[in-house]
Amino acid sequence: MLAKFISILLIVSLVGFTGCQGSKSADSDAQIRQVLDRWTKAFSAHDLDGIMSIYAPDVVAYDIGGPPLQYLGKDAYRKDYQDFLAQYDGPIEVEFRDMHIAASGDLAIVNSLEQFSGTLKGQKQKSTIWLRASSGFRKRDGVWLDFHDHISVPADFGSGKALVDLKP
Amino acid sequence: MLAKFISILLIVSLVGFTGCQGSKSADSDAQIRQVLDRWTKAFSAHDLDGIMSIYAPDVVAYDIGGPPLQYLGKDAYRKDYQDFLAQYDGPIEVEFRDMHIAASGDLAIVNSLEQFSGTLKGQKQKSTIWLRASSGFRKRDGVWLDFHDHISVPADFGSGKALVDLKP
Repeated sequence: MLAKFISILLIVSLVGFTGCQGSKSADSDAQIRQVLDRWTKAFSAHDLDGIMSIYAPDVVAYDIGGPPLQYLGKDAYRKDYQDFLAQYDGPIEVEFRDMHIAASGDLAIVNSLEQFSGTLKGQKQKSTIWLRASSGFRKRDGVWLDFHDHISVPADFGSGKALVDLKP
Repeated sequence: MLAKFISILLIVSLVGFTGCQGSKSADSDAQIRQVLDRWTKAFSAHDLDGIMSIYAPDVVAYDIGGPPLQYLGKDAYRKDYQDFLAQYDGPIEVEFRDMHIAASGDLAIVNSLEQFSGTLKGQKQKSTIWLRASSGFRKRDGVWLDFHDHISVPADFGSGKALVDLKP
């Protein structure tokens, strides 16, 4: 009886200790980089399903273009991405810079500067734009899903212009 | 000896169990709302120190105005807030809408639409603007600090304008 009690305590201790962090921060970091790597490859292939595969059904997105201020849900955000892809001929390249990933248990925040490069329809030269990107990820059943995106460029309040030509 | 062993196991189990979540998600939610409540009151009083009190020293901020694309560190972001406050006469009111807080252990993500209202210098009528705001918070020594801000309005790519007059 005592041995059984000690065994149970030992198991509880171990579960408490190893289960505590859900997944280790370093593991989460590597897993999310894999998700984002898959995501960038989908842009190269104009693969809308691949792009959308990283998002949660109830994603709330503040995108670079508007209106609206926010896209509520995966269907609305998918339509937004579809319009984005339709502007480009050929592959779209995505490059991240100054990426930070903070993770705790099943939650993670990613922020980085992102460069999108590609040829806009009707243009000959490649167009590039640097964006600021922040995302929230939640791990469900072993899969990290993006439940919040915020993508933007800053505004110049003097001219009222969106600053689409800034470089890091 | 055995009693001591069992005691230690019991303590480890309890620590594993209660320490696991760091702080409960509902508690984190309430604590962060208190931080943001303090922050909005500081705007009303043009209290720059109060505004900055919620930020981590190494905060990375993507702000609504630019250049630059990003403000690195609390000093740079403080200067940015100083310039923001200097544009207004009298109190600045902050209202949140559609706020979501996701928390796990010592990490939290907040996103919401934010309305800033106040009288710009040289103008008689109150000016209001709706922004999108996303923030990352980390709890250190019992204090939630904002280590990442992303504030923006969307752009209209047709006109090149920043959309400063959208409403939710």
